[in-house]
Amino acid sequence: MTPEQMLDVAVEEARKGLSEGGIPIGAALFSADGELLGSGHNRRVQDGDPSIHAETDAFRAAGRQRGYRKTIMVTTLSPCWYCSGLVRQFNIGALVIGEARTFSGGHEWLADNGVSVTLLDDERCVTMMQDFITANPDLWAEDIGE
Amino acid sequence: MTPEQMLDVAVEEARKGLSEGGIPIGAALFSADGELLGSGHNRRVQDGDPSIHAETDAFRAAGRQRGYRKTIMVTTLSPCWYCSGLVRQFNIGALVIGEARTFSGGHEWLADNGVSVTLLDDERCVTMMQDFITANPDLWAEDIGE
Repeated sequence: MTPEQMLDVAVEEARKGLSEGGIPIGAALFSADGELLGSGHNRRVQDGDPSIHAETDAFRAAGRQRGYRKTIMVTTLSPCWYCSGLVRQFNIGALVIGEARTFSGGHEWLADNGVSVTLLDDERCVTMMQDFITANPDLWAEDIGE
Repeated sequence: MTPEQMLDVAVEEARKGLSEGGIPIGAALFSADGELLGSGHNRRVQDGDPSIHAETDAFRAAGRQRGYRKTIMVTTLSPCWYCSGLVRQFNIGALVIGEARTFSGGHEWLADNGVSVTLLDDERCVTMMQDFITANPDLWAEDIGE
């Protein structure tokens, strides 16, 4: 699978979140050979749960794994510090990011710490986040602790 | 409330986790005036959920909050990168740690980034983790992604 194909799965998750009235960020965790281990999206609004960002939802959906070094985390948006910490602690080997224009989290810190980072700068992701933030500035601020 | 009294709540959570057959790490989130907002413990074993560390469980239990600057996160063990990222992203103002002898995560990084960090070096916490790690080395390695 190409990074673009993996991103498509995360974009579908983000759209699902949006259709549920939630924050449109999606993520997916893949094995090295392209098997989907788990996918998910931000659930702050839907579940009233601030701990479930897209990346943590995908990580949770993948269940207990013994080692993440060869896995690839794909997310529609640059991961915040919380989700960047997840990637670093569990030694997830690679990170594919839809965009980092609307929000830039810890992806450079991850690259400095050995994670293979691919930034696709995908227009669908940029537009979806920009539109959401413009329409829901307070909810977005809440989700990133600002 | 003193840091020691707040730690007692986290220790009780860790003991609850141990009694459930889980990894004995507990945490609690308090308001500036000592109100307990939420508490929890690691649930990897109990829920089969690798995303629930003690700190993320306490954060989840506190529900949606508008600003964490004046809150205090208390945890029996130095927070891993995942949980350190949580503290940083949500601008949690203070961190109280039971011990950092058996595992040292990102608490110095948090202190460097403006979080008020108190390390209590509590013997109960050290003994509980040391005993657990000695008896369950593989489970512990899984929980910290090693």
